[in-house]
Amino acid sequence: MGEKGRKILVAVDKGEESSYALSWCLENLLSENHQNYKDTLILLFAKTPLPIYSGMDTTGHVTSPSIIASVEKYANEVAEKVMCKATQICKDFNDQITMETMVEHGDPRDVICDVAERFKVDFLVVGSRGYGIIKRAFLGSVSNHCAQNVKCPVVIVKKPKSDNADH
Amino acid sequence: MGEKGRKILVAVDKGEESSYALSWCLENLLSENHQNYKDTLILLFAKTPLPIYSGMDTTGHVTSPSIIASVEKYANEVAEKVMCKATQICKDFNDQITMETMVEHGDPRDVICDVAERFKVDFLVVGSRGYGIIKRAFLGSVSNHCAQNVKCPVVIVKKPKSDNADH
Repeated sequence: MGEKGRKILVAVDKGEESSYALSWCLENLLSENHQNYKDTLILLFAKTPLPIYSGMDTTGHVTSPSIIASVEKYANEVAEKVMCKATQICKDFNDQITMETMVEHGDPRDVICDVAERFKVDFLVVGSRGYGIIKRAFLGSVSNHCAQNVKCPVVIVKKPKSDNADH
Repeated sequence: MGEKGRKILVAVDKGEESSYALSWCLENLLSENHQNYKDTLILLFAKTPLPIYSGMDTTGHVTSPSIIASVEKYANEVAEKVMCKATQICKDFNDQITMETMVEHGDPRDVICDVAERFKVDFLVVGSRGYGIIKRAFLGSVSNHCAQNVKCPVVIVKKPKSDNADH
């Protein structure tokens, strides 16, 4: 591999498959020279927007600000937890790895494509799933959307079935 | 990356995107230690079966054996040319790379998934296209099919538009 470090975007989420994809990336895709890692990992989590607009829900009832606040608080906690786990996986692999964390608001499919483009990453790593089974049936998988829309190479990682506990 | 060499399956075809995917793989995905490459590349080309069954075409006319022979000869020449180009790309990159070439009969989508499974490869590299624009509209892309059906990680490589001449 070249001497120049690359920017590798890794989409992370709550699922076990995303942790597996990150670990697989660390073990298989980082260019390394005597434990000297030149690549930069960008760990990206997309916070799905709340389905509440202007304090009014779909039935026209005004949603109390305290409910909005607690849903928002929960979303922040999830983001923090996901990032904490992801950075820990990287540090456990090797504490010399350069990484950046990024939390963005929006549909993961749009957020991932947008960040890949904006930061001109060398490639994107994504777990083959990334939504629950119901959402996936309606929206298609995140990985599929990214593979079709991102311009850079996309690495789609599936967790082997034998130790796939979350699906 | 680990000390153990990996088996990397690269699907090759006539298109420029497939050559780009192979080059990108060589530059970005091979684990290397002082020009010492431990991975084995398996270059796979799928020869699409002839649409002629038992010497009879779809209108019921018997197709002459000489036509079958010349179509078969053309298919073999294409396979040879594709493999020659692919192995040359590898040698030009580095002549120490271990590679195997494989030509199989069948729909590329099935052949790629089957070989990935049979040879228990560590990951698959495929260009984001692999059919012409018309066939793709009916059959979906090869890369999409593989991403959904192969169990190992799949790397989908797109040729940047600026130097994408074949589509």
